[in-house]
Amino acid sequence: MRHALGIDLGGTKILAGVIDLERGKVLSTAKQRSQVDQGPDELLARLVETSREAIQAAKGVRPEAVGIGAPGQIDYKRGVLILGPNLGQHMDNLPLASLLGKRLDLPVTLGNDVQVAAVGEHRFGAGKGHDDFMCVFVGSGIGGAIVRDGKLRLGASNTAGEIGHIVVDVGGRLCGCGGQGHLEAYASRSSVVRAILSSIRAGRESVLRDAVSLPLPEIPSGTALRSKAIAKAVAEGDALTLEAIADAARYLGAGLVSAINFYNPGRIILGGGFVDAVDLLFVQAAARGRAEALLAAGRSVEIVRSALGDDAGIMGAAVLAAGG
Amino acid sequence: MRHALGIDLGGTKILAGVIDLERGKVLSTAKQRSQVDQGPDELLARLVETSREAIQAAKGVRPEAVGIGAPGQIDYKRGVLILGPNLGQHMDNLPLASLLGKRLDLPVTLGNDVQVAAVGEHRFGAGKGHDDFMCVFVGSGIGGAIVRDGKLRLGASNTAGEIGHIVVDVGGRLCGCGGQGHLEAYASRSSVVRAILSSIRAGRESVLRDAVSLPLPEIPSGTALRSKAIAKAVAEGDALTLEAIADAARYLGAGLVSAINFYNPGRIILGGGFVDAVDLLFVQAAARGRAEALLAAGRSVEIVRSALGDDAGIMGAAVLAAGG
Repeated sequence: MRHALGIDLGGTKILAGVIDLERGKVLSTAKQRSQVDQGPDELLARLVETSREAIQAAKGVRPEAVGIGAPGQIDYKRGVLILGPNLGQHMDNLPLASLLGKRLDLPVTLGNDVQVAAVGEHRFGAGKGHDDFMCVFVGSGIGGAIVRDGKLRLGASNTAGEIGHIVVDVGGRLCGCGGQGHLEAYASRSSVVRAILSSIRAGRESVLRDAVSLPLPEIPSGTALRSKAIAKAVAEGDALTLEAIADAARYLGAGLVSAINFYNPGRIILGGGFVDAVDLLFVQAAARGRAEALLAAGRSVEIVRSALGDDAGIMGAAVLAAGG
Repeated sequence: MRHALGIDLGGTKILAGVIDLERGKVLSTAKQRSQVDQGPDELLARLVETSREAIQAAKGVRPEAVGIGAPGQIDYKRGVLILGPNLGQHMDNLPLASLLGKRLDLPVTLGNDVQVAAVGEHRFGAGKGHDDFMCVFVGSGIGGAIVRDGKLRLGASNTAGEIGHIVVDVGGRLCGCGGQGHLEAYASRSSVVRAILSSIRAGRESVLRDAVSLPLPEIPSGTALRSKAIAKAVAEGDALTLEAIADAARYLGAGLVSAINFYNPGRIILGGGFVDAVDLLFVQAAARGRAEALLAAGRSVEIVRSALGDDAGIMGAAVLAAGG
């Protein structure tokens, strides 16, 4: 197969792109809000629209198949989204592959978004030529995936790789999943932003005060700061932000230690929007991970940056469409 | 191959046994202290002696090959013990397979003790019929191994499975390996004994006071309490011991959560001398592990007791001798 359409379905946006699988090139893309609160019919309509836009923009190149990565637990064989907490409950048990396939009149393969991104890095990115590695993607949450013998390890419930939900602090912070002390509650962008805002609210000086437009007491606890704003604050040497990143790196490093000691990978691809934007987090976490791991395991792991950034999802989805 | 000799080399003792590989039976065993402080020549002499004793006790059955599991980092291809912290530094880079092979005039295969025990459970024990599982063995330390597609995952430095050294408490207790907050520092028998003794020294009542013969202030901090003594205290409802086990189970459960969420195994074999003796630790840790894991991953994992106990090592070593 030469051309496939890859779709990265997220909680807030849909990204679709036509991929040249031979040259590993993104030929066209289209983007749209996913508006998942409007239910499955609206989501499906938006997926179709975004797909058609991307195909149109590819100027005559016709994709032969479609791959889609969605955030949740996937039944790969049946192409069903079993559970997708970030998409809302009304999407559970959605036969996304067949629904979309009918609308687009193309074969559709469904996968988990993070696992699919790992497939993209494997074929075209930082995992190229490596058949045994794991990915850690840090964004508003923390996800991951395991590739071994050149294939995804899906695990017993197709959810393998969830490194955001390893326990780094027994009895510690509440995680979005309901667990306690999970890595995601310490090192995701959301958790770092929460820490920064709580310090600002407590009167601490920071250049990020300006990034929050509301008067301090009115800042909602769920306020988002973009990765770019945080990266800028780091570049300006903002003390509060540097501390928050160092804290996050300490936990992220511990998460890497756990993965390195337990799984003994030869390569870890550490990426995701937050790490891609804030390289200090990569540098500090990778250094801690290697230094604090067991000697032999720490020496034999390479920790590298992801290579595809936001395109990993659509590129991996296209690879999935072509049969993996 | 019908019969092989399996050797389990530990920091304190050597156990050897002739195994009937077809029937999965231990035909004979012999045991001896390993006395690793006396250096490699003495160790080798003891290995040879124990092997011969076991062979003699097998009454005419001649093993066709020898397998040996040793605590440390192994070069499987060359049969070399690269690093064995529990055996002392003078054993590093010891070509154990060839040295022992010459003395016994039999082919010898060397493996890591815990990985070898997992091979034993796979062929003859709680992993029989399962080609994708992991083992967690809790004794004076905590070790583990990963079996996938019916084979050991050795990892990039042949040290895969070291779940005792995942971080459960960032910045927490010092681990024997030099790391901080590792599972082994909270849930191994050594760490539980340390906690119990420190409470006894502080004046807390416990039936285990009698198990320690010295006057309280003179109890050395490295004093060992046997798993059986702890199991007896549990059976008698000793409050201090029950608390210590509940604490250990909390951390061990968190370690299982990390493994379940990250690796998504279908089966975990939870064993080792301490867990085998103190079933309450199994029950509490397994319950926590399943309950606190991500829903899908927690539902799809079976956590089971090991089946071979102390024989896992020699049985697995015999399997290794026969080519895995």
